[in-house]
Amino acid sequence: MTTQVIVLNGGSSSGKSGIARCLQAILPEPWLALGVDTLIHAMPVSPRRSVVGIDFAPDGAVIFGPQFRALEAAWIAGVAAMANAGARVIVDEVFLGGAASQQRWKAALGTVPVLWVGVRCDSAVAAGREIARGDRVIGMAVSQAEVVHQGVAYDLQVDTTHTEALECAQAIAACVR
Amino acid sequence: MTTQVIVLNGGSSSGKSGIARCLQAILPEPWLALGVDTLIHAMPVSPRRSVVGIDFAPDGAVIFGPQFRALEAAWIAGVAAMANAGARVIVDEVFLGGAASQQRWKAALGTVPVLWVGVRCDSAVAAGREIARGDRVIGMAVSQAEVVHQGVAYDLQVDTTHTEALECAQAIAACVR
Amino acid sequence: MTTQVIVLNGGSSSGKSGIARCLQAILPEPWLALGVDTLIHAMPVSPRRSVVGIDFAPDGAVIFGPQFRALEAAWIAGVAAMANAGARVIVDEVFLGGAASQQRWKAALGTVPVLWVGVRCDSAVAAGREIARGDRVIGMAVSQAEVVHQGVAYDLQVDTTHTEALECAQAIAACVR
Amino acid sequence: MTTQVIVLNGGSSSGKSGIARCLQAILPEPWLALGVDTLIHAMPVSPRRSVVGIDFAPDGAVIFGPQFRALEAAWIAGVAAMANAGARVIVDEVFLGGAASQQRWKAALGTVPVLWVGVRCDSAVAAGREIARGDRVIGMAVSQAEVVHQGVAYDLQVDTTHTEALECAQAIAACVR
Repeated sequence: MTTQVIVLNGGSSSGKSGIARCLQAILPEPWLALGVDTLIHAMPVSPRRSVVGIDFAPDGAVIFGPQFRALEAAWIAGVAAMANAGARVIVDEVFLGGAASQQRWKAALGTVPVLWVGVRCDSAVAAGREIARGDRVIGMAVSQAEVVHQGVAYDLQVDTTHTEALECAQAIAACVR
Repeated sequence: MTTQVIVLNGGSSSGKSGIARCLQAILPEPWLALGVDTLIHAMPVSPRRSVVGIDFAPDGAVIFGPQFRALEAAWIAGVAAMANAGARVIVDEVFLGGAASQQRWKAALGTVPVLWVGVRCDSAVAAGREIARGDRVIGMAVSQAEVVHQGVAYDLQVDTTHTEALECAQAIAACVR
Repeated sequence: MTTQVIVLNGGSSSGKSGIARCLQAILPEPWLALGVDTLIHAMPVSPRRSVVGIDFAPDGAVIFGPQFRALEAAWIAGVAAMANAGARVIVDEVFLGGAASQQRWKAALGTVPVLWVGVRCDSAVAAGREIARGDRVIGMAVSQAEVVHQGVAYDLQVDTTHTEALECAQAIAACVR
Repeated sequence: MTTQVIVLNGGSSSGKSGIARCLQAILPEPWLALGVDTLIHAMPVSPRRSVVGIDFAPDGAVIFGPQFRALEAAWIAGVAAMANAGARVIVDEVFLGGAASQQRWKAALGTVPVLWVGVRCDSAVAAGREIARGDRVIGMAVSQAEVVHQGVAYDLQVDTTHTEALECAQAIAACVR
């Protein structure tokens, strides 16, 4: 039962990508890091993004275009197929639908051994990091901090509020079989 | 027999990514743009890249790490699964193995309807554009310009030497069913 | 009378940055490449950008915040000082004010030997390249193509419509003293 | 005696850029953020970088090309001129020469009111953040952590080891006149 997929779920600016890069650096085998940012980058850009993909309200809320869900479902199926074909994959995700989002991944991953990791960060701290990054829509961190974890079941949770990404990655790596 | 995948194959700096973005802008349905750059970006970074992924010789030649092929095979299987799950996908590729590279994609895509497009560019012109981009390993354009097309069968070829990306995209779009 | 500054003026997506990088590659001495993109990158980001810097109307028109001009004047004075201190500088600019914009640079540069270069591109071609780049506000290329050259005096003009960036750079380099 | 320039000096991955962006967000007036990364980005790219600019040894040590110092001196003179022309400037710097580096800026800035800020970070923590960033030469954080502060005089020091960028920025902003 070798771990084949690590799902990192957390709100914007909670520190998922940094943890993913640290995992890639410390895990002995090669892991691919893919995530919702990869999907968004692959989608048509604005102005078509408002129809096809996602857009942002002035308060940082994410607005999905009517065709987003179909593309996302195909994306999830594809990432699951990569794991089934033998790739180790770190999935960097934002479960805006909470338990329903997790269920979509569970259904697609089937019997692939997954390590479910919740990446938490105090909402005010994440909001500050959002400002420090300088390239994020302000408000996303706060609006996503709690909702993405609602009803989601984890094997392990890390909290980046007072713990560095590398240390979080070491805790996760210790759970990888 | 609706076209589900468009494969754009060409050397570095031949203009594939610009054509892909134009296709996303002009095709009526939403298309995902994925490619070898997506895969490389998903891989562990240097110094581990030399083992896991790819690296570059001083003359721009691409050197594959021993574990690259296995990850690439899983990647191809995953992109094929996205198409099978209903996503329209533009694949931006560099067939360094020529016909053998195409065969890998053909085997994975199976019965999915594919439009195979060769993206050509005069080698000296591509070398100049490589300099103008400023973020590419010098020498890749020349070393890849011809080899990537050897033995590859296309439905359509475009040449960016004297034709703009948008115009090439329009010619390709006219062949999409 | 060694050329100390090369000013490249042209509309968005006319190909200035590619020419600048080619000039840096072919000129025997080291040249710094600075431009309006450097200035915008140095400014506070959105939402403060609308007050401090620049923003974009839905049609691609550029809207200046009330405090933009003061910061820009200081920026121009600083770049002129770099040239006076001995640096060779390529300035990548968009003279939205036409002759008035050129006058601001002339006044700041004083007796520094400048090569004024107009970078032209057919408006429809630039609009297509804007789509191909994928990260530009659509409409800027067309709205800027002509207005930036109104009343501006040049030592040399290049046209990227049918000429590669490297070839344009070679023509410019031949005029550098 | 209004503060016109804020110099943030610290090693690679100590958190300077995040603090600069937070300062831009919270200070009431517009501030430009410029730094050594701006200068390096403006220089010719590799392979010419090894002559003109800077390069990196395998252990992360920075190697200066023979012409780097002259360009850097002109750059410093230019940034000082921007401040003299009225711009408020945050300078994001790495004083690899310690006190000598500070002296170069002091000489150029003359009577401009400067707030000198040391940005410290525990060397092991900075090394971890370097891994998490994924785009930095490994080893720079450790090799620079102490040396950049040797003999440098500050008005204020902040430490990002256990303090967020926004909180550091608030402490700095409280010292801005």
